[in-house]
Amino acid sequence: MAYTLGQIAEEFGLVLVGDPQIPISGLAALADAQSGDLAFLFNIRYLASAQTSHASALVTTQENADKLSTPLLISPKPRLAWARIAGLFDTSERLSGIHPSAVIHPQAKLGKDIAIGPNAVLAADVELADSVSIGAGTCLGRGTTVGMNTILHPNVTIYHDIVIGSDCIIHSGTVIGADGFGFEPDMETGSLVKIPQIYGVRIGIDVEIGAGSTIDRGALNDTLIGDGVKIDNQVQIGHGTQIGAHTAISGTTAIAGSTRIGSYCLIGGAVGIVDNIEIVDQVEITAMSLVSTSIRKKGRYSSGTGLMPGKLWKRNIVVFKHLNELAKRLRKLED
Amino acid sequence: MAYTLGQIAEEFGLVLVGDPQIPISGLAALADAQSGDLAFLFNIRYLASAQTSHASALVTTQENADKLSTPLLISPKPRLAWARIAGLFDTSERLSGIHPSAVIHPQAKLGKDIAIGPNAVLAADVELADSVSIGAGTCLGRGTTVGMNTILHPNVTIYHDIVIGSDCIIHSGTVIGADGFGFEPDMETGSLVKIPQIYGVRIGIDVEIGAGSTIDRGALNDTLIGDGVKIDNQVQIGHGTQIGAHTAISGTTAIAGSTRIGSYCLIGGAVGIVDNIEIVDQVEITAMSLVSTSIRKKGRYSSGTGLMPGKLWKRNIVVFKHLNELAKRLRKLED
Amino acid sequence: MAYTLGQIAEEFGLVLVGDPQIPISGLAALADAQSGDLAFLFNIRYLASAQTSHASALVTTQENADKLSTPLLISPKPRLAWARIAGLFDTSERLSGIHPSAVIHPQAKLGKDIAIGPNAVLAADVELADSVSIGAGTCLGRGTTVGMNTILHPNVTIYHDIVIGSDCIIHSGTVIGADGFGFEPDMETGSLVKIPQIYGVRIGIDVEIGAGSTIDRGALNDTLIGDGVKIDNQVQIGHGTQIGAHTAISGTTAIAGSTRIGSYCLIGGAVGIVDNIEIVDQVEITAMSLVSTSIRKKGRYSSGTGLMPGKLWKRNIVVFKHLNELAKRLRKLED
Repeated sequence: MAYTLGQIAEEFGLVLVGDPQIPISGLAALADAQSGDLAFLFNIRYLASAQTSHASALVTTQENADKLSTPLLISPKPRLAWARIAGLFDTSERLSGIHPSAVIHPQAKLGKDIAIGPNAVLAADVELADSVSIGAGTCLGRGTTVGMNTILHPNVTIYHDIVIGSDCIIHSGTVIGADGFGFEPDMETGSLVKIPQIYGVRIGIDVEIGAGSTIDRGALNDTLIGDGVKIDNQVQIGHGTQIGAHTAISGTTAIAGSTRIGSYCLIGGAVGIVDNIEIVDQVEITAMSLVSTSIRKKGRYSSGTGLMPGKLWKRNIVVFKHLNELAKRLRKLED
Repeated sequence: MAYTLGQIAEEFGLVLVGDPQIPISGLAALADAQSGDLAFLFNIRYLASAQTSHASALVTTQENADKLSTPLLISPKPRLAWARIAGLFDTSERLSGIHPSAVIHPQAKLGKDIAIGPNAVLAADVELADSVSIGAGTCLGRGTTVGMNTILHPNVTIYHDIVIGSDCIIHSGTVIGADGFGFEPDMETGSLVKIPQIYGVRIGIDVEIGAGSTIDRGALNDTLIGDGVKIDNQVQIGHGTQIGAHTAISGTTAIAGSTRIGSYCLIGGAVGIVDNIEIVDQVEITAMSLVSTSIRKKGRYSSGTGLMPGKLWKRNIVVFKHLNELAKRLRKLED
Repeated sequence: MAYTLGQIAEEFGLVLVGDPQIPISGLAALADAQSGDLAFLFNIRYLASAQTSHASALVTTQENADKLSTPLLISPKPRLAWARIAGLFDTSERLSGIHPSAVIHPQAKLGKDIAIGPNAVLAADVELADSVSIGAGTCLGRGTTVGMNTILHPNVTIYHDIVIGSDCIIHSGTVIGADGFGFEPDMETGSLVKIPQIYGVRIGIDVEIGAGSTIDRGALNDTLIGDGVKIDNQVQIGHGTQIGAHTAISGTTAIAGSTRIGSYCLIGGAVGIVDNIEIVDQVEITAMSLVSTSIRKKGRYSSGTGLMPGKLWKRNIVVFKHLNELAKRLRKLED
């Protein structure tokens, strides 16, 4: 794969500064780039790195352009341009055809241009719209439907009666539609009686779900993932929870059941969000925060103590245990 | 699937108020319920919702019944009744028969009424008791045994020599019996030498394990999961750890090795529990707490700071770093 | 499997005290050990348990030997000796041969003595060096290469163009090479545009990766896992991150993208490490700490509040919300 700088400028409508014949064969960061690589300068803070980079050309803004003597591709939205240029160098596997080892129930319905990898399993009444791709070893339960152009990577598991929209990407190891965690103690026997999870999961369009994530089916309503939602790896979403459109959730975050999260939220990695609360639109939660009550006002929220050397930390947490008492003593002194 | 209110009352021994011929075709929450749905009122706090619900009937207590004019199913334990009624509307897939693509070692022993899905793999000396169901793509290692009526969903992985009791449910993506995390530094080579994990995992009866969870095999003793334990999604249980009967563990909680947890504990989501400690019976740990020492008294335990707006949080964690010093200054003032 | 104490002493170059004919058929902890078991006393704190143990022999140091009357295997590095002896009693499954149900692309290249389990899938241009073992249902994407003696357990997923070194072990459910979490907001449409993740993952030699872990491919450079690194279960490693040689990472830890971690670090379980930071060599992070800035000095670091009874905790976190204000009031009093 190699393009000329001129081809890239034309393809994405960018302003070209320099020789259009310069060959571009890859993308790299400023410090790593070699001849033939395209790199970027978005933040002027990295100007020095840009000036010493071996990249053959840079993607940047008009504002930065004057400070650079290398060939340039100029865009008012250089990050977006970069995301699109990167697609030229994407070597992801594209399956084609239906592998003979796939086990497809005779009552499954397949659209046109479907790709199904080896050992994939489609149960009865599965419906795949046109141009769906199902990776090797991926299993779809009875009655599950998948929208146009959606890609399921290998070893994904989708339970029965799940609805997945079009233009989605679901990565390996992810499980959608397993039973929500619902039990009722039976005081006579001491055991926890399972509450059947009779609803499903509905996933909108243009949703990406990372590897090893789990989204449970609901007990009283469907679990809902809005359009354009992006979910990272090892995220857990409980039964009946709703995620608003275009919200992004970073890795290993856990969201308990029956919680409603708004649109355009940014939820950091390793966050915990308890059940049955509500979070409005445009809320940002920083990494490893615990959200244990509803958030009714947009903005940025955090919890935790910050990191410190182990010895210092040990002394401080002893005081934290008596913090309320300490506050009282201070008040007494003030009085 | 549709039942009359009278059929449901009879099936579960409930007191019926209203027309026994009312058709019930589904379950829903009060606010979502439509005609044909059964809903519930457990907590009198939601009385207003119950009074305006479109549900055809409600499950509730005798105490609440007087305040309601809709048809009712009355039980002294309405939550338990609800859990059982929900079973009528459960559309979970039930496998039947042994799919010809399953790879079953000739030395595996199968009971009666076994179901095995496509591409499942049973190694030598695997033993399945009667009515076991093994999902598509699920792999069982050599010598593993599974008790009666147990269901393993698709794409589960069980290593060698694991014992799983009867009436268990194990969801997709879960891995049981991988090697515990045990290494010994070799100072001469600088490398970490693997400690072979020569014991296994024993899982009791009536255990449910969610999707994407991992339970490691032991180095010095079997990892033990007691009867009636319920484990949610993406829970990690380290080698040689013991979980007492009827304990429930919510999603993404991590329990390190050689720890002993009592019976009837409730462990919140995203909790961390360190290795080699002991937790007595009936301990409740709230979400995202870190348990770093043994808990010897039953009750409820927490850690963390609570959530706050990002700017406020940043100022507070600066003070937390000096908390011990601050306590000393207060003491000095008091003196 | 049974050995005499003499055989074990000879095999591992240990000093034998007692009858070399004593049969050893297993390993156990001091308290659990029965006749026929070998146990260990590393820490003199457990001397009483050693003196009452039913073990047939103990592994210990010369220093402890004088206090014990049981048969002994003596080593200056008894923990390392134990790790090696345990290998004798390891009953892990070893695959052999290539199962006819495996789907191997004609353009895959296989070395000698390869084992491939049922329903494994190797795409085009996969290369396996000699003595590689691929578990049942494991999928390797196009162009991925695996070094000598490396073992992939069942139901592992490796994407395209991933490099895995020799002598590695990768446990079930793990996913390597899924797309890193990278999106760029398009303000016009409100959607998050995917940034193609065009680099791969390179894993060194002698690396072990637990069950259900995920290591993403990079957008601007390969994600790198150094030689001898040990990664526990359900660990998440973001795109472009680098882990230095011989670092150990415990279960459910999440490391975001483009972070560089040094060598010989010990990262506790359930730790969160944000993106784009640097951690030097020999840093220890205790369980469930959040690392949100670079660590430039070796040593031990922690965060969190410590655990406390729920009622006390609730009072303390109210004060924490006003901690900065409280510090100011104290200063005012001092003045």
